[in-house]
Amino acid sequence: MSEPILPVTERTRVRRVHDRGHFDRETINQILDICPHCHVGYQLDGKPIVTPTLQWREGNKVYWHGSSASRAIRKSGETDVCLTVSTMDGLVLARSAFHHSANYRAVMIFGKAEIVSDPDEKTERLRAFVDGLFPGRWDMLRPMTAKEVKATTLLSLPIEEASAKIRTGGPVDDEEDYKLPIWAGIIPIQQKILAPINDPRNLTEVTVPDHVSGFKF
Amino acid sequence: MSEPILPVTERTRVRRVHDRGHFDRETINQILDICPHCHVGYQLDGKPIVTPTLQWREGNKVYWHGSSASRAIRKSGETDVCLTVSTMDGLVLARSAFHHSANYRAVMIFGKAEIVSDPDEKTERLRAFVDGLFPGRWDMLRPMTAKEVKATTLLSLPIEEASAKIRTGGPVDDEEDYKLPIWAGIIPIQQKILAPINDPRNLTEVTVPDHVSGFKF
Repeated sequence: MSEPILPVTERTRVRRVHDRGHFDRETINQILDICPHCHVGYQLDGKPIVTPTLQWREGNKVYWHGSSASRAIRKSGETDVCLTVSTMDGLVLARSAFHHSANYRAVMIFGKAEIVSDPDEKTERLRAFVDGLFPGRWDMLRPMTAKEVKATTLLSLPIEEASAKIRTGGPVDDEEDYKLPIWAGIIPIQQKILAPINDPRNLTEVTVPDHVSGFKF
Repeated sequence: MSEPILPVTERTRVRRVHDRGHFDRETINQILDICPHCHVGYQLDGKPIVTPTLQWREGNKVYWHGSSASRAIRKSGETDVCLTVSTMDGLVLARSAFHHSANYRAVMIFGKAEIVSDPDEKTERLRAFVDGLFPGRWDMLRPMTAKEVKATTLLSLPIEEASAKIRTGGPVDDEEDYKLPIWAGIIPIQQKILAPINDPRNLTEVTVPDHVSGFKF
């Protein structure tokens, strides 16, 4: 096909399986901060369970929360967990099935989840979660009640045993396969924020706040 | 805000925590088929690990694969796993922090992962994976070699112990909070397929195949 439109910077960042690991805190933090959607794995009744939830980072810790009524959430505290964040950035089509791949960014954090039980501490962390996604929103809301704080289980995990993996760029084929007339390349995938949808019960005078109209991860 | 633009069908499908479960096969299959990106949780050296990968479904089984060189992939065979697929479809902003939520579709499948070891069976399943994403692509590719089949570990899990959870629609606030002048609504999030990027080493005569230009999940 015509000209090479795959950017050189991307190409030079192609990494094969054994070169994909990153352990620097900056890379790990960048991925965590751009992708709240995460999956937490732990043992429940002796069997693995993976629950999707939202995480947020403050300093060298990640946090997530759930309903105190959920046995699974309660059971994931004070036990070994693996919290994984991963984005799917594209499908990579090669000239052989074997070299097909996916572009992604992923972080895995291992450790013992801690339950944050002090009500003031819980409230501050939940404020950081809300304001992290929607700057300034917390103070606009009806204040959280003691009952609501109690009904929320808050978990944290230190970012100590963690790694990041990133794959970017196009396919890496066997050298002899480049002569084959097979289309190869990338189908990029991107998470898109669409226009906000107003709740039909919003009061007439209410306008869309900046943290909604300008929302981004 | 002006008129209610949240579609009624969506509103009627709002489900509170305890109503979000679906166990019918059709719902489970629909979510699995639209979202290959999944997270597999299992025990590795007595601790939980959650690895992102791509799954595909054939009948009442899901499959995923990895490098036979990966200890983690090998260890996830013949052991209890939880395979979770989840999409994040939107952030739901309420009038109190407590009622903020996320719209999502999720499937969790529990069971013992089986290693598919017969080379012909492996090849057929990998063909189904490639052709499932990109109809007709397998036969266009340089054929898979015996060495490549051997270097691939293929895992399967029956869809027997499984559930789906779905949340759609706007916030559900405490009745007395609807009188507050606080913007509430949904920030929808959508996974978008962007225009394909040609590999710069594609031969001049090669054109973009339909399974690439028309790609969708």
